[in-house]
Amino acid sequence: MSVPPPLNPRERILMGPGPSTVSQRVLRAIGAPTLGHLDPQYIEYMDETCQMLREVFQTTNPLTFPVSGTGMAGMEAVVVNLVEPGDEVIVCINGVFGGRMKDNMERAGATVNTVEIPWGESFSDDAIAEAVQQHPKSKLLGIVHAETSTGALQELTGISKIVRDAGMLFAVDTVTSLGGHEVKVDEWGIDAIYSGTQKCLSCPPGLSPVSFSPRAIECMEARKSKVQSWYLDVSMLRNYYLGSGGRAYHHTAPINMVYALRESLAIILEEGLEARFARHRDMHRLLRSGLEELGLSYIPEHSLHTLNCVAVPDGIDEGAIRRRLLEEYDIEIGGGLGVFAGKAWRIGLMGHSATRRNVLTLLAALKDCLG
Amino acid sequence: MSVPPPLNPRERILMGPGPSTVSQRVLRAIGAPTLGHLDPQYIEYMDETCQMLREVFQTTNPLTFPVSGTGMAGMEAVVVNLVEPGDEVIVCINGVFGGRMKDNMERAGATVNTVEIPWGESFSDDAIAEAVQQHPKSKLLGIVHAETSTGALQELTGISKIVRDAGMLFAVDTVTSLGGHEVKVDEWGIDAIYSGTQKCLSCPPGLSPVSFSPRAIECMEARKSKVQSWYLDVSMLRNYYLGSGGRAYHHTAPINMVYALRESLAIILEEGLEARFARHRDMHRLLRSGLEELGLSYIPEHSLHTLNCVAVPDGIDEGAIRRRLLEEYDIEIGGGLGVFAGKAWRIGLMGHSATRRNVLTLLAALKDCLG
Repeated sequence: MSVPPPLNPRERILMGPGPSTVSQRVLRAIGAPTLGHLDPQYIEYMDETCQMLREVFQTTNPLTFPVSGTGMAGMEAVVVNLVEPGDEVIVCINGVFGGRMKDNMERAGATVNTVEIPWGESFSDDAIAEAVQQHPKSKLLGIVHAETSTGALQELTGISKIVRDAGMLFAVDTVTSLGGHEVKVDEWGIDAIYSGTQKCLSCPPGLSPVSFSPRAIECMEARKSKVQSWYLDVSMLRNYYLGSGGRAYHHTAPINMVYALRESLAIILEEGLEARFARHRDMHRLLRSGLEELGLSYIPEHSLHTLNCVAVPDGIDEGAIRRRLLEEYDIEIGGGLGVFAGKAWRIGLMGHSATRRNVLTLLAALKDCLG
Repeated sequence: MSVPPPLNPRERILMGPGPSTVSQRVLRAIGAPTLGHLDPQYIEYMDETCQMLREVFQTTNPLTFPVSGTGMAGMEAVVVNLVEPGDEVIVCINGVFGGRMKDNMERAGATVNTVEIPWGESFSDDAIAEAVQQHPKSKLLGIVHAETSTGALQELTGISKIVRDAGMLFAVDTVTSLGGHEVKVDEWGIDAIYSGTQKCLSCPPGLSPVSFSPRAIECMEARKSKVQSWYLDVSMLRNYYLGSGGRAYHHTAPINMVYALRESLAIILEEGLEARFARHRDMHRLLRSGLEELGLSYIPEHSLHTLNCVAVPDGIDEGAIRRRLLEEYDIEIGGGLGVFAGKAWRIGLMGHSATRRNVLTLLAALKDCLG
């Protein structure tokens, strides 16, 4: 039997599309002694975590909790709980994650109407209004707030009104925005939302915060069929996360991951949401001006602050540059995904990674590598 | 915005049905710096983790990896990848987890033939042979090796031969046995198997090790329909875990959880599988004689070493005893589940928790509480 050498991961600066750098405070929290998932002390930690999640989501939705899987499990939880075989839905696609949402919806038995625009662009209210008019029987419209594959930010307030006026549920992917861009679940009329812990929350990957509005719960309660996933079935999960007078065991919660999430949310609330969003905006501007000085141009017109997607100049081996950044500087940035593979770099400014020191370090290193 | 007090979990001795106590070594590993999920260093850690998992599963199956969710996600991964709508299957039920397997199979569209025996009993080869004869068109037979709800151990070698001779796949739940009882995937002819990290591996909850035989892969490759879960679709996951010449991004792996699993597997291989199984057997015998001296009797005839399920004596408030153990001694044991709720205690002897010191401490504390 062969035992590998001791674990000794390098201390990278993580400025790719996620995970972002995890602070020492969160790394200490994740290593705290494991409690049982029904221990009263753990239940209290979990409740505090859910309450802080509500504050970060800016919602009073009782049904707000971390799904025990990474961001894609959150997407699937939203889809399989709201969609039944035969349902018609609308999915907006302008990158990889809209495409995945469509795939998820189809696997849940939905007929998916798509609205597609070129990668890197954001949807206009008019495009959504037209789709909603064309497919009036749709139960739900799903859209990505922050397309991790293109770096495009999507405005949501106008779209939300259109969708809800048409009597549809509004489902939003905020994997790369929550904790870095403003996300207002209640004010923006979002019915179902999911995120990931490893982006702007700067917690290790492994959990997917979700929140469901009372309208979404009504929809779930009116289901004719069982949710196809046992693991993600919210009708059972709510008895654990919200059960009064005793929590019903469903599955063993990932205790230490919840410790980490609790700590990362505390850090966010200590900083304050507004200050945090301003920091992400300022770091984006600083990075942007530096990248443009190096001759690099942004792909999306309406760029995220948290993920900066720039075109790789002609004649440059983008993979070789990323390898040098990793090997010589211990800095990780991301390559392009999907249609942008080999053509783009994706530079994350998320949570604990979004600092002046990191931005200036990356710019200096990149300048060196581009020679 | 309200920030809760600092995280400070008590150092419990975890002797319930899981999680078990996590060693300092594993807690240090989980708090190591987070790497990106495509970082070459992380890929190496992941490969080493999968290789050690093969050794612990006693298999050469290439398709052996940790599912990014807790044990129940592993059950679902096995079910949704092997079962298609319209398939006929056999599920053996003698406790909560057999029942859950049935529920999972039905959600995947299977017609489920059940073999049921009273809770706490184990299946005879004859009972299985009869079921296989009655339902010869079944694609798969699913059974629980270690029923966490009753403490019953299931012999598998005879059953495996019956199932495979009938041309069916053999799927096994080893959530509460892997790392504590002998589990020989290849020798026992198991086609699909899942476990959890928080039991006899003594790693925090959050991952579910799985392994699929070449026969199981053939079955997946012959599917007519897409796997209903995107998150658990092995046809995509294998490109990340086994892809040669670059790993295809599927979802962001739970990096720090994998660090913890890697460390806990290294600890197991350092101890040696045979020595580890012997330790669990010896600690079970020590606990058993102590419990019987206290007048407590085991419920299952064929008890697991790793989970000891005893009847609560008449007139005892079982919840009050568990609360005293937790509050006065910082020891967690479990209550009964399902038909045993209020009637049983479940005492875990799993991995790092299965020590002479813990057994004697628990017996002394229990004696005190039973007064």
